[in-house]
Amino acid sequence: MQLGMIGLGRMGNNMTQRLMQHGHECVVYDARAESMAALEALGATASASLQDFVSKLSKPRVVWLMLPAAVVDKVLDQLVPLLDKDDILIDGGNSYYHDDIRRSGALRSKGLHYVDVGTSGGVFGLERGYCLMIGGEKPTVEHLSSIFAALAPGKGDLPITESRPKDLASTADQGFLHCGPHGAGHFVKMVHNGIEYGLMAAYAEGLNILRNADIGMREHVVDAETTPLQNPEHYQYKLDLPEIAEVWRRGSVISSWLLDLTADALYGDPGLESYEGHVSDSGEGRWTVIAAIDEAVPTPVLSAALQERFSSRGNADFANKILSAMRSEFGGHKEKPANKTAG
Amino acid sequence: MQLGMIGLGRMGNNMTQRLMQHGHECVVYDARAESMAALEALGATASASLQDFVSKLSKPRVVWLMLPAAVVDKVLDQLVPLLDKDDILIDGGNSYYHDDIRRSGALRSKGLHYVDVGTSGGVFGLERGYCLMIGGEKPTVEHLSSIFAALAPGKGDLPITESRPKDLASTADQGFLHCGPHGAGHFVKMVHNGIEYGLMAAYAEGLNILRNADIGMREHVVDAETTPLQNPEHYQYKLDLPEIAEVWRRGSVISSWLLDLTADALYGDPGLESYEGHVSDSGEGRWTVIAAIDEAVPTPVLSAALQERFSSRGNADFANKILSAMRSEFGGHKEKPANKTAG
Amino acid sequence: MQLGMIGLGRMGNNMTQRLMQHGHECVVYDARAESMAALEALGATASASLQDFVSKLSKPRVVWLMLPAAVVDKVLDQLVPLLDKDDILIDGGNSYYHDDIRRSGALRSKGLHYVDVGTSGGVFGLERGYCLMIGGEKPTVEHLSSIFAALAPGKGDLPITESRPKDLASTADQGFLHCGPHGAGHFVKMVHNGIEYGLMAAYAEGLNILRNADIGMREHVVDAETTPLQNPEHYQYKLDLPEIAEVWRRGSVISSWLLDLTADALYGDPGLESYEGHVSDSGEGRWTVIAAIDEAVPTPVLSAALQERFSSRGNADFANKILSAMRSEFGGHKEKPANKTAG
Amino acid sequence: MQLGMIGLGRMGNNMTQRLMQHGHECVVYDARAESMAALEALGATASASLQDFVSKLSKPRVVWLMLPAAVVDKVLDQLVPLLDKDDILIDGGNSYYHDDIRRSGALRSKGLHYVDVGTSGGVFGLERGYCLMIGGEKPTVEHLSSIFAALAPGKGDLPITESRPKDLASTADQGFLHCGPHGAGHFVKMVHNGIEYGLMAAYAEGLNILRNADIGMREHVVDAETTPLQNPEHYQYKLDLPEIAEVWRRGSVISSWLLDLTADALYGDPGLESYEGHVSDSGEGRWTVIAAIDEAVPTPVLSAALQERFSSRGNADFANKILSAMRSEFGGHKEKPANKTAG
Repeated sequence: MQLGMIGLGRMGNNMTQRLMQHGHECVVYDARAESMAALEALGATASASLQDFVSKLSKPRVVWLMLPAAVVDKVLDQLVPLLDKDDILIDGGNSYYHDDIRRSGALRSKGLHYVDVGTSGGVFGLERGYCLMIGGEKPTVEHLSSIFAALAPGKGDLPITESRPKDLASTADQGFLHCGPHGAGHFVKMVHNGIEYGLMAAYAEGLNILRNADIGMREHVVDAETTPLQNPEHYQYKLDLPEIAEVWRRGSVISSWLLDLTADALYGDPGLESYEGHVSDSGEGRWTVIAAIDEAVPTPVLSAALQERFSSRGNADFANKILSAMRSEFGGHKEKPANKTAG
Repeated sequence: MQLGMIGLGRMGNNMTQRLMQHGHECVVYDARAESMAALEALGATASASLQDFVSKLSKPRVVWLMLPAAVVDKVLDQLVPLLDKDDILIDGGNSYYHDDIRRSGALRSKGLHYVDVGTSGGVFGLERGYCLMIGGEKPTVEHLSSIFAALAPGKGDLPITESRPKDLASTADQGFLHCGPHGAGHFVKMVHNGIEYGLMAAYAEGLNILRNADIGMREHVVDAETTPLQNPEHYQYKLDLPEIAEVWRRGSVISSWLLDLTADALYGDPGLESYEGHVSDSGEGRWTVIAAIDEAVPTPVLSAALQERFSSRGNADFANKILSAMRSEFGGHKEKPANKTAG
Repeated sequence: MQLGMIGLGRMGNNMTQRLMQHGHECVVYDARAESMAALEALGATASASLQDFVSKLSKPRVVWLMLPAAVVDKVLDQLVPLLDKDDILIDGGNSYYHDDIRRSGALRSKGLHYVDVGTSGGVFGLERGYCLMIGGEKPTVEHLSSIFAALAPGKGDLPITESRPKDLASTADQGFLHCGPHGAGHFVKMVHNGIEYGLMAAYAEGLNILRNADIGMREHVVDAETTPLQNPEHYQYKLDLPEIAEVWRRGSVISSWLLDLTADALYGDPGLESYEGHVSDSGEGRWTVIAAIDEAVPTPVLSAALQERFSSRGNADFANKILSAMRSEFGGHKEKPANKTAG
Repeated sequence: MQLGMIGLGRMGNNMTQRLMQHGHECVVYDARAESMAALEALGATASASLQDFVSKLSKPRVVWLMLPAAVVDKVLDQLVPLLDKDDILIDGGNSYYHDDIRRSGALRSKGLHYVDVGTSGGVFGLERGYCLMIGGEKPTVEHLSSIFAALAPGKGDLPITESRPKDLASTADQGFLHCGPHGAGHFVKMVHNGIEYGLMAAYAEGLNILRNADIGMREHVVDAETTPLQNPEHYQYKLDLPEIAEVWRRGSVISSWLLDLTADALYGDPGLESYEGHVSDSGEGRWTVIAAIDEAVPTPVLSAALQERFSSRGNADFANKILSAMRSEFGGHKEKPANKTAG
């Protein structure tokens, strides 16, 4: 099948490669010409402009956008006038599903079809395949099934879930799923990322506890501003974090792909000196918590994971200063210099 | 190697089987005779009493306890007087590592060796092997290595972490690890379970958001006590939870063994009607948070996961009544009947 | 000054009374005629219809809306066509500040002025006065200052903050404040309520800990699903909650008006048997957390307080069932019946 | 009544003054002689040593300790051998109630009486009086009632709670309360401080949201690592924080003494430039959360408030680095420099 790909960053580039490996024909476009050159060498057709890109696609055209969420509408403004009735637009990036609902309505009135695809898999997707969560109209989604099948991991050697009905007419076991109408793909991907924040935080907090299990061996200040450690004899462990991550990968209840990656990062840099710990959040975590609030669904863990990221970037500083100011007001407590307890 | 196993519940029974499958000789004891019969049929030696059990073991004896944490000290009180110098006691259950520190000191003064082993793997461990986190003195731990190797999953077909030094003299890649001195095994297992609580909660909260994505299709009360749903058009999705869990298993960043199990549970009972949602906590989650507090390590996610379990058992009820009472006092707000918003 | 009040619920009724006590002339309207009768007896002018209401006000008219947030737009649709250029509309309810921004623009294009007023004080406001947070254009807000002064508590006998500049040209020390442009009043009131949720939860959680300080005196189940209480001797206190609330009112760092109300509720019904603990949230708590997310400001406490309310209404049930299902899958853990630990 | 005071820091000094103002006779001791001089000028009797201190007290002696929790046992080791049967020891500091239970038993075996007093009021207590939460045996507590009455605020002009039974034989309305047996005083004070952490955090988080309400007026980076602000037009408010704190003091539901102090701090230094925001925690907050965990009482708000303090001191840094490392592993996400979103 022929497909046009716009946006050749890390994700778009890899996905184009995987599509070509599975026999699909790819026309590509990116504002940076050098991004196209490498793919051209692998068999893709590069485009000189959006106009050129559109002209190289046969109708009904299939255009996959792999762009930062903030840029999608700008590209659509330029692209849509160049398209014809029955062409298909796929947003495979991390758009807000609100935007999918809005866009699909606007595009439908022009005779265009819109499909939203949440894509998980990261830099390993080229090799392992991408997990695809899809929203849109059934006929359009079905029309694209060979594209999705190429990008997805397929059944591979992962056993199908035992209690799954054998005769289910669904592609979930191949790694892609039509989740529902417009926006459903990005909705499910959004929650996927919200969960991801929670999982990551759980590992990170646990490893931080392990790292500080030697706190009883360190010197402690004795003053009214510092809580004395009640039982230093309970905290005399110097633990080997990469080795612990490695052993947990094997047979434990908390084994996961994220843990595999964590072990890799810890062996490479056990003190993680190459990081500062300012953690970005790219939208889905926020939107997940907002959706939960709209639904009145309690999400203490997902919310806490999101807040930690805000806090990691210094955004709690003013609140903390208020706490110090209050303590100074009522108790005459002087702030102590930034002397970490935990390491 | 010969090993005596005390406590033949779900875990002890399976571990004994796995040990025998790997050629170890097992003497077993359990207060319930019927628990021993099945293992006897598979080749284990049953015991009529603790005395009998001890007499059947050759010195230096190796005794593995697989008991509820609250029972270990009682059994030790009866068992220890029957043992001889240089015998080895292994606590493979979920004991508090404080108890390991205390016990190992008391036993050392009697010439006995103590090893604490945190064991993860659940009911699947018989087949998959158990992840073992071990605390104790190096010579004793090394003496037991064939036992640990039999219980652990081994290298299997899981690739070793890429950045792991090739020449590391460690058994982490076989699924068991000597983590440190007395208590270190249960300390690491404790944090493992704390992380497990966080992971489980992340999936559970996310799936609850997905389940309520149809809230805009339901009827809403309009009164001053109920927040109006701002945008019902954003919540029109009836999502298929088992299918979503299945697709996430394949290639997504959040794939994990816990997710595999969740998919299985959801296909079997999509509405989870067979559960009430009163979630026990068996100690490690609490101890993890307490350790974090002692270390002054922030654990918002692990704490929240623990609190959710308390709350699931109705333990927030009195606090909630106070909130209702306050609202009645300052605003004359009448409580609404228990009409859930989310489903 | 003459003012028209629409919406004579608990708040609108009391505010009208307070305005009249301070010499203002009030025309009132409510769909329920009986709500107007009582105020008429106190000197207000009742209206037969919205048309009648508008006709009784002299131009430029001042109309105060005291309505549930979900109803304001419907009433405005009927009211606005009846008004004339330069009339002033005040929304004193708990509207979302997004709506203020939208409405003020729409009304401005018709020559009408809009003021948003966040009103705190509850059922005690009639006597104590209301704290008013005001958003809008400066001339309009100044035009209404006698209205605000009547509703607000005034300086009273509460000392002015010591470090406050003596010559500040502001009304904050009288209990009303022009916070900023359209929406600023409701924005500040929204955050006020978000804080209120946090304060209430802090007291409620603390009192729940006190109530369960006798847990060591209660019987405990011993099984693998129940964490044993490590030190029952530490939890042997039967505490008198109303008395503790009373003593905290006097000289403690946590004294507050909310605590005064809590003491009153606890003396009246120490076990709070008359409440079920299903706690509503009327919007501002949600909007506060959403604003914090948009701003990337960490709000772990305010978020947790909101989530607790969702949870109090049973909305965590499905997530909890997932936890039970997972535990059953990996460990064969059977759910225990709903036997609360804490009382 | 005669009372000996050991420990003349901020609290001990002020309390001694207040006792003398109410006609009590005070013998004082502090390792720093200069701390005694000022009180001597006001009528106190200074001591050259602990021996001297004890010799100046008439039997049965009443000794009040006002010391950092970590020092109490050391002082008791020196002091107790100097005392006689029936002497009374009062720990008025912030000791862990576990220590009270232990100490009271040890002292009882020597014929000494022990009373634990949780003291709230901070630096304002000298003038306003201290809220006292008392644990111990009834006769001893009653023997000391004139001491407690002098330190407490008394009924003052704060109305007694309306629903309080008129004939209650209790001193709660005077600002001191016998809460229960040994440890009950510090237990209640501990929870008091836990609540205090929650209250402080609620105000601090809310004010941080207000401070960042102008985020829509600031410039934003556009890249895949930064969530775009959806609606900048909703965040165009430059709010005056001290004025808002001042207006909330008057008639609002969230008025409190902590808010009075916050207003004072904000007027004095609106940007709180004189603080760094490294917030100490002096023990009670931790112990409160640990007690809640033992009781299985959910405390999401109190826990979050505690975690925020840990985090303010940099103790989440390693966990945050793990998050950055994971993101780098799975997505090739590069960390962004520490560019705060919120101000």
